[in-house]
Amino acid sequence: MTLIIFLFAGTLRTTHKNEVSSMNEKRVGKRTIALSHPPSVISYANIGGRQEAEGPLSSYFDELSDDSFFGEKTWEKAESTMQKKVVQRALDQAKLKPDDLDYICAGDLLNQCIGSSFGLRDFGIPFYGLYGACSTMGESLSLAAMLIDGGYASRVAAVTSSHFCTAERQYRMPVPYGNQRPPTAQWTATAAGCTILAEDGPGPYITHVTCGKIVDRGVSDVNNMGAAMAPAAYDTLAAFFRDTETKPQDYDLVVTGDLGELGHAIVRDFFSRDGVDLGENFQDCGLLLYDRQAQDMHAGASGCGCSASVLNGYLLSGMRSGRWKRIVFAPTGALLSPTSSFQGESIPGICHALCISAEK
Amino acid sequence: MTLIIFLFAGTLRTTHKNEVSSMNEKRVGKRTIALSHPPSVISYANIGGRQEAEGPLSSYFDELSDDSFFGEKTWEKAESTMQKKVVQRALDQAKLKPDDLDYICAGDLLNQCIGSSFGLRDFGIPFYGLYGACSTMGESLSLAAMLIDGGYASRVAAVTSSHFCTAERQYRMPVPYGNQRPPTAQWTATAAGCTILAEDGPGPYITHVTCGKIVDRGVSDVNNMGAAMAPAAYDTLAAFFRDTETKPQDYDLVVTGDLGELGHAIVRDFFSRDGVDLGENFQDCGLLLYDRQAQDMHAGASGCGCSASVLNGYLLSGMRSGRWKRIVFAPTGALLSPTSSFQGESIPGICHALCISAEK
Repeated sequence: MTLIIFLFAGTLRTTHKNEVSSMNEKRVGKRTIALSHPPSVISYANIGGRQEAEGPLSSYFDELSDDSFFGEKTWEKAESTMQKKVVQRALDQAKLKPDDLDYICAGDLLNQCIGSSFGLRDFGIPFYGLYGACSTMGESLSLAAMLIDGGYASRVAAVTSSHFCTAERQYRMPVPYGNQRPPTAQWTATAAGCTILAEDGPGPYITHVTCGKIVDRGVSDVNNMGAAMAPAAYDTLAAFFRDTETKPQDYDLVVTGDLGELGHAIVRDFFSRDGVDLGENFQDCGLLLYDRQAQDMHAGASGCGCSASVLNGYLLSGMRSGRWKRIVFAPTGALLSPTSSFQGESIPGICHALCISAEK
Repeated sequence: MTLIIFLFAGTLRTTHKNEVSSMNEKRVGKRTIALSHPPSVISYANIGGRQEAEGPLSSYFDELSDDSFFGEKTWEKAESTMQKKVVQRALDQAKLKPDDLDYICAGDLLNQCIGSSFGLRDFGIPFYGLYGACSTMGESLSLAAMLIDGGYASRVAAVTSSHFCTAERQYRMPVPYGNQRPPTAQWTATAAGCTILAEDGPGPYITHVTCGKIVDRGVSDVNNMGAAMAPAAYDTLAAFFRDTETKPQDYDLVVTGDLGELGHAIVRDFFSRDGVDLGENFQDCGLLLYDRQAQDMHAGASGCGCSASVLNGYLLSGMRSGRWKRIVFAPTGALLSPTSSFQGESIPGICHALCISAEK
């Protein structure tokens, strides 16, 4: 066996050099990539917990669990299990095996992203671990789309999760303490979402990708993440519209990740100052996931799993059914840690935007 | 201004469709990418602390600080400052401004990767946050190389860091506690490294990239990371040699990240079982960075900053000077967290490998 492997020793196998593809050719404007071969969504799945089951989008979930432990002994193991289940479900729906995926791009909010590394370890899929906080669904989809479009992969999965109880005990207070929450606070979704992209398929397609910059305008209130992330959302969305020479009204939906009520209103205000009306199609996954009044969810939902589960259910189903033809999906992340806040730091934000379209 | 921006409203700008580039064409074997246009290293820089200054590679550092706080009030802020300084230094050496970079790919060991998000927030460079533990220099370079080769960017920086004091208090014991360390324990480097890649330049070049899988063989001793990561290093290196149809002797160096004495020996054993002799050119950054006897470093160095600083000093300088023509750089990461260990989990590992060559 060894002999066979080393028959061609000394000469590295290389592919045919594609001289046509000059560098940086896929860039439109300063920050946006227009994918030459827009990858297709071929499968998607989501999982939620009890609050997600009681919300208005419950019928768009593939699986809803009343057990916040998902059969495990700890909440952290529960979050890993959610990632495992949601990837398996997305694979099953596409009739694929783990080995059919060239890469998996994943991350989560837990210290050292253990939701992903433990949840995905048994699949044996080449793994790029990401940390984009609640923007992770946008970051993972962006990189997945470029890995396929660039000729590095045929199929890539993008996955992320969050869990109310793991996030509370890591970022805030142990859940049994019953800490009070101000009106600007958001509720971390117990949810996971997975999208599988491929070089070809029935759509929708990822046509454009805009990478976020770290934006920090000095907000330091950890109970007001929406305000902390809003400047990053404005920065990336403004870059996206500028680069693609389009306006918000050219899209059926422009949907941020988890800005919540206040952050969402701030982004609308920022655009108003530029004379741009974001209009009625400007939505936020954090405002869609729960019935904020009936469920007492304060400013709305948050967490990586918020935008991931709304995309991989409500939004992609709506696109498949023809309800929306072209959307901008722009999840935001707050790049703080409890340590950085204890040390008096403000909260940097980031937002990764993608254009998802029914047509290539 | 708004009017001008929206002149072409409704039609998304797209690039010329490059019909020649068929999908997945850049793959050799099952897991390895042969880059069509190998990106060039155009600049690199590293920074270290006191222990790094006392080690055998001290002359290969751009900056060495005797102050573990790097002028800041906390060690976490010190780590952010290291990332900021090392990126600025790499930019300066290439006579570039932050705006000349299309992306920065970065991550670190701190909870929520705050070394990167706070260290890099002022640059305003589009940011892909990564979490690969101590494999981050390999992961960031891999993605940076593909972003350039794929036509998405002209110049991309890859950066990471670690700090002995931030790692100790996060993963183990507060430093002043003076905890005893077993012989298999490694010493987290206080160091950072940054590479800037571009579509063209004097080399060396990134010619091949092999993405790691999460590999967990059940090792659960947090004082023996080398053993936990060794199976991942074996898995990725074996895939790399198989896919490229080469053998270890075809390279001037095959260098892992921070396996340390025991992990390094285990990888050598694994290959021996397959009848493959890794030979004398099989090295480990964790064994190169310190004088283990004189500095009492037990099994060797570890941390994202270990392989990052050894690459962006000793290794790349050696390649530029002609000492080595072609190397395999394969940093490993242990994807655990203190929480996962407290909950009885074993330690998953990962290894990302790249071929760096003086010739395209």
